[in-house]
Amino acid sequence: MTKIISIIEKVQNANDQLAAEIQEQLQQARLFSLNLMASPGAGKTSVIEKTLAELIPLYNIAAIDGDIATSIDADRAAEAGATAVQINTGGQCHIDANMLKIALGEFELDNFDLLLVENVGNLICPASFKLGTDKNVLIASIPEGDDKPYKYPGMYQDVDALIINKIDLLPYVDFDMDYFKQGVQMLNPDLLTFPISCKTGEGIESWTNWVIGQIKTTKSS
Amino acid sequence: MTKIISIIEKVQNANDQLAAEIQEQLQQARLFSLNLMASPGAGKTSVIEKTLAELIPLYNIAAIDGDIATSIDADRAAEAGATAVQINTGGQCHIDANMLKIALGEFELDNFDLLLVENVGNLICPASFKLGTDKNVLIASIPEGDDKPYKYPGMYQDVDALIINKIDLLPYVDFDMDYFKQGVQMLNPDLLTFPISCKTGEGIESWTNWVIGQIKTTKSS
Repeated sequence: MTKIISIIEKVQNANDQLAAEIQEQLQQARLFSLNLMASPGAGKTSVIEKTLAELIPLYNIAAIDGDIATSIDADRAAEAGATAVQINTGGQCHIDANMLKIALGEFELDNFDLLLVENVGNLICPASFKLGTDKNVLIASIPEGDDKPYKYPGMYQDVDALIINKIDLLPYVDFDMDYFKQGVQMLNPDLLTFPISCKTGEGIESWTNWVIGQIKTTKSS
Repeated sequence: MTKIISIIEKVQNANDQLAAEIQEQLQQARLFSLNLMASPGAGKTSVIEKTLAELIPLYNIAAIDGDIATSIDADRAAEAGATAVQINTGGQCHIDANMLKIALGEFELDNFDLLLVENVGNLICPASFKLGTDKNVLIASIPEGDDKPYKYPGMYQDVDALIINKIDLLPYVDFDMDYFKQGVQMLNPDLLTFPISCKTGEGIESWTNWVIGQIKTTKSS
């Protein structure tokens, strides 16, 4: 019954060459890097805080936080022990490779083991702008609803790992985990998935153990 | 301590003239129109369903739903009694005036009393693309967190009304309502605000009464 009008806009990938340069730069520094993407309020900064709490005793960690405005997120990362730089995009809905390259200029990369890039809160635009980081991670959250893989396929199909945050809220919201996982499976079979709660701490160790494994592999490569 | 790098991108408002044309078209049809914007999963479609449940017995209602992919939202609006059209933006993170104009061509506007436009789930891009609708409404939700007005000021400062959805989750998440409201007040003093729960129905009547008042005013203008 519903009429569908398709208005396709071709996404420009002019930043791909710059992303390749960043990738080489990070590999030379033997630095493992993560691009964390999510909807506003899914818990990107909380995941970073929990990750830092576990890993700061072990590693030197750089954090780059992208937002439209404020330095709330970088301040939180800095308080949690990272060396943090905030990018204010002035309205742009994602970090692009050019912004990241400028921000990376603020760090002596050889001194760091892990780089956490917190992208702008958005389930659309960041998917189109690769940054040259080792792994792209999507953070979903329970109260967002179980239909998000179906409605934002671009984001789900290109990521290397998926964190499902706020599982402590499962008893209080309508969220069909099977329907959610079917959508994910359709787009990204065998996607590495970490169900966690930043509030209760459930699942955090499994996530940080994976990150530690990746850091070790990068160092020995 | 945190270093801030500002990268300002000037937002193009090439669609403003088209929005003005739409505004005239809607006014001539004496149709009251709402542009509903929110983060993914804040509850735009649920708010539309609740609104339709109250108003379908009273009015003829058109719904236009924008999404990257699928017609899930327009299907839900159609099931709830609206005449619904889905716009698939093919990756674009907002509805623009051009898309809306094409979608409006599918309706005999004189036959309708209310138009509900559900924008793409995004707290950034839709703020920059006015559509010519009578009122812009932002739907925030409790689990998104209380810092959103500070981090997405563009969205909060230009809207005419704010729905705070999922208030039934207040006991289960850390959400400082005073901090949230201070942020809103700073950007948009005296913003009309409706705290609601689509799950329990709390606050819905106050919202729909406001919509009914706006429809009546538009008809008699």
